[in-house]
Amino acid sequence: MDAVLISEVGPRDGLQNCKAVMPTAAKKAWISALAEAGLKEIEVGSFVSPKLLPQMADTAEIARHACGIDGLAVAVLVPNLKGAQLAVEAGAHKITLPMSVSETHSLRNIRRTHDQVIEEAHAISELIASLPEDERPDFEGSLSTAFGCTLEGPIDEKIVLRCAERLIAAGCDEVGLSDTTGYANPRAIRHLIKAVRAEVGADRLTGVHLHNTRGLGLANALAAFEEGITTFDSSLGGLGGCPTAPGASGNIVTEDLVFMFESMGVATGVDLDRLMACREFLERALPEEPLYGFTPLAGLPLGFRPAATEAA
Amino acid sequence: MDAVLISEVGPRDGLQNCKAVMPTAAKKAWISALAEAGLKEIEVGSFVSPKLLPQMADTAEIARHACGIDGLAVAVLVPNLKGAQLAVEAGAHKITLPMSVSETHSLRNIRRTHDQVIEEAHAISELIASLPEDERPDFEGSLSTAFGCTLEGPIDEKIVLRCAERLIAAGCDEVGLSDTTGYANPRAIRHLIKAVRAEVGADRLTGVHLHNTRGLGLANALAAFEEGITTFDSSLGGLGGCPTAPGASGNIVTEDLVFMFESMGVATGVDLDRLMACREFLERALPEEPLYGFTPLAGLPLGFRPAATEAA
Repeated sequence: MDAVLISEVGPRDGLQNCKAVMPTAAKKAWISALAEAGLKEIEVGSFVSPKLLPQMADTAEIARHACGIDGLAVAVLVPNLKGAQLAVEAGAHKITLPMSVSETHSLRNIRRTHDQVIEEAHAISELIASLPEDERPDFEGSLSTAFGCTLEGPIDEKIVLRCAERLIAAGCDEVGLSDTTGYANPRAIRHLIKAVRAEVGADRLTGVHLHNTRGLGLANALAAFEEGITTFDSSLGGLGGCPTAPGASGNIVTEDLVFMFESMGVATGVDLDRLMACREFLERALPEEPLYGFTPLAGLPLGFRPAATEAA
Repeated sequence: MDAVLISEVGPRDGLQNCKAVMPTAAKKAWISALAEAGLKEIEVGSFVSPKLLPQMADTAEIARHACGIDGLAVAVLVPNLKGAQLAVEAGAHKITLPMSVSETHSLRNIRRTHDQVIEEAHAISELIASLPEDERPDFEGSLSTAFGCTLEGPIDEKIVLRCAERLIAAGCDEVGLSDTTGYANPRAIRHLIKAVRAEVGADRLTGVHLHNTRGLGLANALAAFEEGITTFDSSLGGLGGCPTAPGASGNIVTEDLVFMFESMGVATGVDLDRLMACREFLERALPEEPLYGFTPLAGLPLGFRPAATEAA
């Protein structure tokens, strides 16, 4: 496999964990610059209550802007049918519904039991099926806290498999594995990918969403890649974090992830210099937010040559 | 493989890159605490000119202290025969001679061509052979800049293999692969380990020395582990760095490396809580030095269980 898809989640997972609210104009300019750097999929926001997440209040406007960018796949997160309706209205190409495998976390995160999440998944898939075929967004069920939960601790694998099977049965095109809490390790990654694929089919699990909370983010991404995963969520500057894990950093860092793949000869389609220049948007709009990533500080190696082939 | 050996290099590679000089008493207390946390091998210093590296001026005294710690393998770095003589006098159990595969770097680092380094290797192995059998330290030739050089750029693999073969022929027990500059990636790691082992034999290459300059440190360690490498150099707090790579961090972080292996069920023999507590020695003695590592900030996962078996 010589190419992967990097799905930039900074505008959603990153910004929703920042104290400051990034102005709409700055978000648009940032997303445009990310796309110009070669990112082919961006999760631009989530359709949740602006009372809960004021950082996401402009998601409809942001999504419409992003849908105007040629060749960009626009993803959004939704907690329920209402969010999915707004996502469809905005023209999103991909809708992700989070289902916390830890039911305790599910209740805290989107105030829904597993049964209620599955009901939403059914309703969303019906909504999508009612659309003309060429207007239907991809629909992913994201298995949050799949590797463990800060509230419940270790998660029984049987529950992960059951959630995956129910999401697919409810009409999701795919499930994704999310290490929401930074509990994963390379062996657990390999094991759970194999197990979930055995349950729902390899073509129903092609993406992972990893956090770098304990520094294992890229090692976990490597393990997932070697298991055949082709889509990797990440965040510019590692923006984000978890409010319940003090001092923890957030998503895996897009810059370092792209550097890892490109240096391995695996094409991402992303221009590293242009990508790293996008940090300026964050430094200007969110000056108090710490940015992570080692490659931007060290620079590219002398004589570095990116992968030559085209991205997935 | 269910166990690895973590070789802590903070007292050498870490401290020699710090501006401040850690007082001898603080070094001794730190090394003792590291051993008490379960580390079984520590590189305690280097026998180089105190004019060049004043941080290492007390290496003889430090090595003698460390040799008094029950069960601890004491490693030192030496640039030449004279250093090796001092190492033997101090009772070191392992002597490492760096050979920069980049001859440009070799000349800058220890002012020697490849031929001159090989002459030193011959002389050191003769010195070791002259000792009573039970007093002979292990002798490793470390292939520095094996994955690329900040002065030369990419390094021809043939030169790496030739250096490895010459070091073994000169009497080294082993060679090690060092990513001095943070240029490695997981594919290069796998490839070069296979190639060097094909050249000198698998039992002649069991250790790697990795830096986290571009954030790939643990991913590279994972790849090396999966290729059968059993000894991993790392540094508490990621102490160290490279003066010629501004903003770059140094060695891979012992805390995160141990967490990765233990969470994978691979025993290190290290107690993570006690290991993380050792950071206090650095915070007290080197208050201006930035410490790296994610696990110490995030803490251990809820319900975390370390690997049960004994370390290598």
